[in-house]
Amino acid sequence: MVGKVKPRLPRGMRDILPQKMILRQYVIGVITQVFEQFGYEPLSTPAVELFDTLTGKYGPDADRMMYDVSRKGGKEKLALRYDLSVPLSRVMAMYPDLHKPFKRYQISPVWRGERPGKGRYREFHQCDVDVVGTDSMLADAEMLNIIYEVMTRLGFQEFLMKINDRKMLTGIGQFAGVPEELLGGLYRSIDKLERIGLDGVKDELRANAIPDEVIGKLLELLQVTGDDRDILAELRGRLAAYPIALEGIAELEEVLGYLENLGIPRERYEVDFSMVRGLGYYTGPIYETVVQEPRIGSIGGGGRYDELIGMFSDRSYPATGTSFGIERIIDVMEELNMFPPEVGTTISQVLVTVFDEAQVGASLQLTNELRRAGLNTDLYFENDPLGDQIRYALKKGVQFVVIVGPDEIAAGEVTVRNLSLKEQRTVEREVMADTIKDWEGCRER
Amino acid sequence: MVGKVKPRLPRGMRDILPQKMILRQYVIGVITQVFEQFGYEPLSTPAVELFDTLTGKYGPDADRMMYDVSRKGGKEKLALRYDLSVPLSRVMAMYPDLHKPFKRYQISPVWRGERPGKGRYREFHQCDVDVVGTDSMLADAEMLNIIYEVMTRLGFQEFLMKINDRKMLTGIGQFAGVPEELLGGLYRSIDKLERIGLDGVKDELRANAIPDEVIGKLLELLQVTGDDRDILAELRGRLAAYPIALEGIAELEEVLGYLENLGIPRERYEVDFSMVRGLGYYTGPIYETVVQEPRIGSIGGGGRYDELIGMFSDRSYPATGTSFGIERIIDVMEELNMFPPEVGTTISQVLVTVFDEAQVGASLQLTNELRRAGLNTDLYFENDPLGDQIRYALKKGVQFVVIVGPDEIAAGEVTVRNLSLKEQRTVEREVMADTIKDWEGCRER
Repeated sequence: MVGKVKPRLPRGMRDILPQKMILRQYVIGVITQVFEQFGYEPLSTPAVELFDTLTGKYGPDADRMMYDVSRKGGKEKLALRYDLSVPLSRVMAMYPDLHKPFKRYQISPVWRGERPGKGRYREFHQCDVDVVGTDSMLADAEMLNIIYEVMTRLGFQEFLMKINDRKMLTGIGQFAGVPEELLGGLYRSIDKLERIGLDGVKDELRANAIPDEVIGKLLELLQVTGDDRDILAELRGRLAAYPIALEGIAELEEVLGYLENLGIPRERYEVDFSMVRGLGYYTGPIYETVVQEPRIGSIGGGGRYDELIGMFSDRSYPATGTSFGIERIIDVMEELNMFPPEVGTTISQVLVTVFDEAQVGASLQLTNELRRAGLNTDLYFENDPLGDQIRYALKKGVQFVVIVGPDEIAAGEVTVRNLSLKEQRTVEREVMADTIKDWEGCRER
Repeated sequence: MVGKVKPRLPRGMRDILPQKMILRQYVIGVITQVFEQFGYEPLSTPAVELFDTLTGKYGPDADRMMYDVSRKGGKEKLALRYDLSVPLSRVMAMYPDLHKPFKRYQISPVWRGERPGKGRYREFHQCDVDVVGTDSMLADAEMLNIIYEVMTRLGFQEFLMKINDRKMLTGIGQFAGVPEELLGGLYRSIDKLERIGLDGVKDELRANAIPDEVIGKLLELLQVTGDDRDILAELRGRLAAYPIALEGIAELEEVLGYLENLGIPRERYEVDFSMVRGLGYYTGPIYETVVQEPRIGSIGGGGRYDELIGMFSDRSYPATGTSFGIERIIDVMEELNMFPPEVGTTISQVLVTVFDEAQVGASLQLTNELRRAGLNTDLYFENDPLGDQIRYALKKGVQFVVIVGPDEIAAGEVTVRNLSLKEQRTVEREVMADTIKDWEGCRER
């Protein structure tokens, strides 16, 4: 045993106290339900991976942000996982017998030593859903369908799924004559279109040593407007000489067709050639979900990555997937009061009070009955006045209080007080649980 | 991008593939349900803690087994959490406004660099439930009640909750005249009684330099047998001169009284003075759950720790809690086939097939309808012969297959095949979901 330790958290880390955890569990519950209703299976990978598994997959800054967990005197160089896609790729390579297409979801924390800030933590959850082993555009459309279902069930109404295709971006680069080594800068500039406008992009491209002539051709393309289908048809003509672009156009047209079949409202998605996403391992359709009202920006995205698994295996598998960042979703839902009323501030629905020491046995039995009836039931432990016990329930947000004193015991009854309606009923003990469940406004859990 | 990486896991780490994850989620679901029905709230703490928070709390070997996650050039010394009790104690000290008693549960991984072995991993889940801020024995009895509910709902029939009290152990030490510095060795020897027998314990105590006279007095005590209540009454006489022992006896008697009130079967618990548990921070009642049939030993335990939080705070809070080790529970339940049939090998209940490219739209619409009816529905992505699609469902363990070809579409019907019963029905599309749900043997999820 050592001296007193000042209780502190590491930089960028946080505790999630019960009231916030209840909101979090609600959001994770909705997402899990959608993932499972779409037939995706749960998978778990360890928090600790070999450093060699992770390094070189995420781009230049990532290695610096990884948590090194190598053990003293250990032979292995270890790191905390940085996302869930690379571990999935390792899994696919390690267990070649997993039958394909392999549909899995994983909802787990990842760790990144970024500079902490408002709403930005060094440990945060990713909710990933992926399918490995199919190159069908049905799978890509399914990802957008999943995003639509999750957002709608969480109560978001004004959101937009922006869709692009990595092959289109490559084709556009070829068309504009951008040398291979400048493509990265080109994409990063295009990605800023919405924020800095056409002139801003033009300036950036110049600063990136992209010739004026190329810039002209490029901006002409980016300014083609109209209905998604019309734009794609127009580009099919202009980019006819670039097979990779035509492939991208065909992929996007196929995905759009499926979204129409699925009845996803037209205003919830659009093709946006300026949406790039950190390109890394993407090879086909990519997408990003932006919440427009309120203007909170991207809350997740994903895309097709047909080459990543090949980094671990002699065989490559086509794959596509999407990821939800729940931290921002939860913050926004809380700010906008979007949680259904039954979510509440406590998981407890009933508090059983203790009248006095002689009546403890009766109270204990009632708690058991209520719990077995499926009601979340808190028992008051101390021998305090009834007023204190009720104040405890009020403070915690528990809706019902059960009181059982000598009179009630003698009569085979209990008194149930509904704190939100400020009503009270004395009922036969047998109907106690049903009385509570049927009471107007009883929150289901 | 780097060269090909051999896909490997760090030593002692593992992936949990979908079929095992489904079992795991079932067990965690039952435990979570019991915790919440008892009114305990969810709490989350970060995986990464300051090393100073953890060190010195667990005993001499623990520091060596912790994962150091200090960042290169970072000022903080960091470690992966080693259990969930010390983080809870830090939380209680950091947020003094949390209202008491504070009831929380946490189901999270912890990391220990132990030598890996069969069923022993370096990352494993703990399921902890604790209440802070009450010294009432009702809370201790509630922990035993929670254990009883969890074990019973998981389907365990032959298990035993062994109960002891840290104050009793101190009192027995005083009675036997064991010098303070030898108490640790004394407890460790006593803990082995069941395994090595009375003579074994005697030899061990001698080897620990405990005088023969002390050994005699001690073994006389340990041999008192009979009903729990009788034993406690007998010891109350023999240990009358040791107030700490009398306190322990009173605590145990109070707990036993509550267990009787709760109607927990008498054969499911017993007082056992030789049950010690890694003493560390315990101060009052302690307990351990042993599964007797089959003989798999301890699957969890806990106890009262009134001083631990005081290591982080000027104020101390009485606290008690228990922890389930789910890794062994899951292994045993799998070996003994204890999972209910509806748990299955896949979360998918239905596969919607794709007849041909022209019919994709119809299949997409059916998947949406089934999912919105609450059925977990997998869509087949490839343009393969129907036989291949059905084989995929069989291999995965999906029970129902939906087939929709041009004839069905024209008639507004679908064909549903029940693969487990080998039956097939063609029904109107409107009743498709209900037909599946109402079909004999349809597994609920």
